[in-house]
Amino acid sequence: MSAPPAGDPRPFTVFAARVAACRARIEGVLDRALALPDPGTARLRAAMRYSVLGAGKRLRPTLVYLTGESLGAPLASLDAPAAAVELIHVYSLVHDDLPAMDDDDLRRGRPTCHKAYDEGTAVLVGDALQGLAFEVLANEPMEGTTPQARLQMIRVLARAIGTSGMAGGQAIDLAAVGQVLNVAGIEDMHRRKTGALIECSVLLGALAAGVTGGPQLASLESFGAQVGLAFQIQDDILDVEGDPALLGKSTGADAAHAKPTYPSTAGLPAAKRRAKELREAAIAALAPLGTRAGALAQLADFVVNRAS
Amino acid sequence: MSAPPAGDPRPFTVFAARVAACRARIEGVLDRALALPDPGTARLRAAMRYSVLGAGKRLRPTLVYLTGESLGAPLASLDAPAAAVELIHVYSLVHDDLPAMDDDDLRRGRPTCHKAYDEGTAVLVGDALQGLAFEVLANEPMEGTTPQARLQMIRVLARAIGTSGMAGGQAIDLAAVGQVLNVAGIEDMHRRKTGALIECSVLLGALAAGVTGGPQLASLESFGAQVGLAFQIQDDILDVEGDPALLGKSTGADAAHAKPTYPSTAGLPAAKRRAKELREAAIAALAPLGTRAGALAQLADFVVNRAS
Repeated sequence: MSAPPAGDPRPFTVFAARVAACRARIEGVLDRALALPDPGTARLRAAMRYSVLGAGKRLRPTLVYLTGESLGAPLASLDAPAAAVELIHVYSLVHDDLPAMDDDDLRRGRPTCHKAYDEGTAVLVGDALQGLAFEVLANEPMEGTTPQARLQMIRVLARAIGTSGMAGGQAIDLAAVGQVLNVAGIEDMHRRKTGALIECSVLLGALAAGVTGGPQLASLESFGAQVGLAFQIQDDILDVEGDPALLGKSTGADAAHAKPTYPSTAGLPAAKRRAKELREAAIAALAPLGTRAGALAQLADFVVNRAS
Repeated sequence: MSAPPAGDPRPFTVFAARVAACRARIEGVLDRALALPDPGTARLRAAMRYSVLGAGKRLRPTLVYLTGESLGAPLASLDAPAAAVELIHVYSLVHDDLPAMDDDDLRRGRPTCHKAYDEGTAVLVGDALQGLAFEVLANEPMEGTTPQARLQMIRVLARAIGTSGMAGGQAIDLAAVGQVLNVAGIEDMHRRKTGALIECSVLLGALAAGVTGGPQLASLESFGAQVGLAFQIQDDILDVEGDPALLGKSTGADAAHAKPTYPSTAGLPAAKRRAKELREAAIAALAPLGTRAGALAQLADFVVNRAS
């Protein structure tokens, strides 16, 4: 959390402490999920731990925790979905960094998985992390959650990462290199590649709290969609004018890869306006939830104001 | 089905027709599962269909169908697990064929996915097929199956493809290139890389039939484990002395890649003895199921006598 949002600093301190608690908690949950008892595959398991543990903003697990808590879910019921979305996120980073994809050497301030290990191992790390996400979601204790709600969580996650979501977004991203997209095309790509899993994180938090349908779930879905798109536009903005030391990766990568982005398509001022507009829309979508959704509104603020 | 097993030809004809029916059925199920309505990702979806449809023995779906039918499950309840195991199998083939893994150009008689498309697309095809397998298993109609049994199926599948199963087996396989393994090491690698998903196919058929524990499930688990290992040893044998025209891929690939195999470790005669021994053990494991398991016994026969 490097950039406090505008407004009264006191609630932000409370919020920042809550986010820090989410980060600490998910680190322990992921550490346990990756304590795989298997002497035959030490290198693969080490590469999985290297890729997952010790770094990252943990935005997606934080969204699971904050959403679930806002709706009264016990923390223990949120660990499994929080771990699942982060395992999926890391799998996608490891594969996206491969030479055949974005060919990146640095991630979260460290050599990417295929640089620290090798390409074959990096493919397997992503593959195994995806499977582990579903295993955790199907298997780990989730107090008070019915089998039906758990199945719904698995469906929501699987849909978010398929061709209409994350994998489809990455395919569009690969095909877009050197191409010109219009703003609608950029937004579609961003909504799938990044937005779908962020929206899914909000939905999993709600499902774990027993909110399996109705207007509350629709509000949260809308919130998640706006925050997800805002997050990726802010990512594009930081790739233009962010601080590499804070980001843990080099900036200018999108331009170097000839990737169309929101700023390259619409200009930097329009990108900033759009991010703020989405923040407003996200916060407005929370209105039916009342004061319970305060932390989620602060998270929307953070997403657009973050410097890393 | 190119090599009929020894014995009375009449039951084999019936069996062969049943296997052919399973193959025809799964082709339609997979075709529908891959009719993904998404105009933005035509190339990714075409590459997924190219990789999955129109070729392959479909051994794993056939095991789901034969096991489930033997235990009285309606065919319609077996389509989703049958599709899931084949989607997982094809994802693993597409990733294993990548240049960073086994670097194969030919698969099922056709150019491999990364040759027909490109490497980045092949990574995404595997990723999306894995997610689709879980989506199908969580989402598709499965008449008479409880949410609990469906969750158990997802757990069994996730475990079979993780570090202690398929992904771990491929990691061991990658690390074993140029190395000498002993017979126990070869068997451990084969049980994970190939055996775990074949065993899982048998278990999913049983779970769909409502057999969620007890001695019947244990018998079938043992059957699946022996057949899975036998299948991979026969694969090793065919790579030495098979007919490339029947196999749809070149032989001698294991030796060319300096991969330790059962024949390279123990010799061809010992490999053939071990395959037959596993067939006997597999059939013996079926004894508690009585005559209902006749088709499964014939499948064990086929696995060891197949020429492709």
